[in-house]
Amino acid sequence: MNDIFDQPGDKLALEDGDTLTPRFDSDGLITAVVCDAKSGDILMLAHMNATALKATLDEGVAHFWSRSRQELWKKGATSGNMQIVREVKIDCDQDAVCLLVDVEGASATCHTGRRSCFYRTIETKGGKHSLIKTGGKPLFDPEVVYEK
Amino acid sequence: MNDIFDQPGDKLALEDGDTLTPRFDSDGLITAVVCDAKSGDILMLAHMNATALKATLDEGVAHFWSRSRQELWKKGATSGNMQIVREVKIDCDQDAVCLLVDVEGASATCHTGRRSCFYRTIETKGGKHSLIKTGGKPLFDPEVVYEK
Repeated sequence: MNDIFDQPGDKLALEDGDTLTPRFDSDGLITAVVCDAKSGDILMLAHMNATALKATLDEGVAHFWSRSRQELWKKGATSGNMQIVREVKIDCDQDAVCLLVDVEGASATCHTGRRSCFYRTIETKGGKHSLIKTGGKPLFDPEVVYEK
Repeated sequence: MNDIFDQPGDKLALEDGDTLTPRFDSDGLITAVVCDAKSGDILMLAHMNATALKATLDEGVAHFWSRSRQELWKKGATSGNMQIVREVKIDCDQDAVCLLVDVEGASATCHTGRRSCFYRTIETKGGKHSLIKTGGKPLFDPEVVYEK
């Protein structure tokens, strides 16, 4: 239960309505997929609690909930690669959103310094699976950017 | 623990390696984002257990784990809107995949009959949020297709 957004209604209201009633899970989170506003390319996947979703919608800059650090996470606050939100879509049962963003700074999204977290493709040959790097080189040096 | 794929190694192996070692969560699942292979548009979000991921990679047709039905779910088996997988990308920490697909049948992905589950955009005006349908009309009639 969150006290920021209205509570979900029945299936018809959820799927066909015009009221934003996110269905946060038992940890209070929804899934957020981040895509490039121009190319549509997938950049990353993260999670949002009600506070992060509200901050994202109100400020137009992507905020998430860091499950590892258990804190509100303004993406790019450290690296400068903030995500300017051009559009937020929500799915049929309102438990996932898709942010269409322009990335500032080095234009990188992944903590490895790459444009996208999805920088490897699974190749299947003769029933064996391996990972091929298809996502380009890092755009910044994580060891410098995240240096404490 | 799954007995289909190798177990995850250290951070370097996970993020920089060429071995597929999916990090299934405590429910045995990873997140799967499905995007259109041609336009890049996001179509849906679902989950996969090891069996669903293996079936997807081996057959080239999208399989998921239905959390509501608790069963392997060959997407489109009922509606005919099967997803032919052109590429599977995996993210930095190997707990999410992105399928790039061509959709067969009515070219619909959502159970509401629409092309994409993300058929509504969140509009924010004066601090109030509402949902605007931006995703087009249903391409099939769910009441006919899913009739028991």
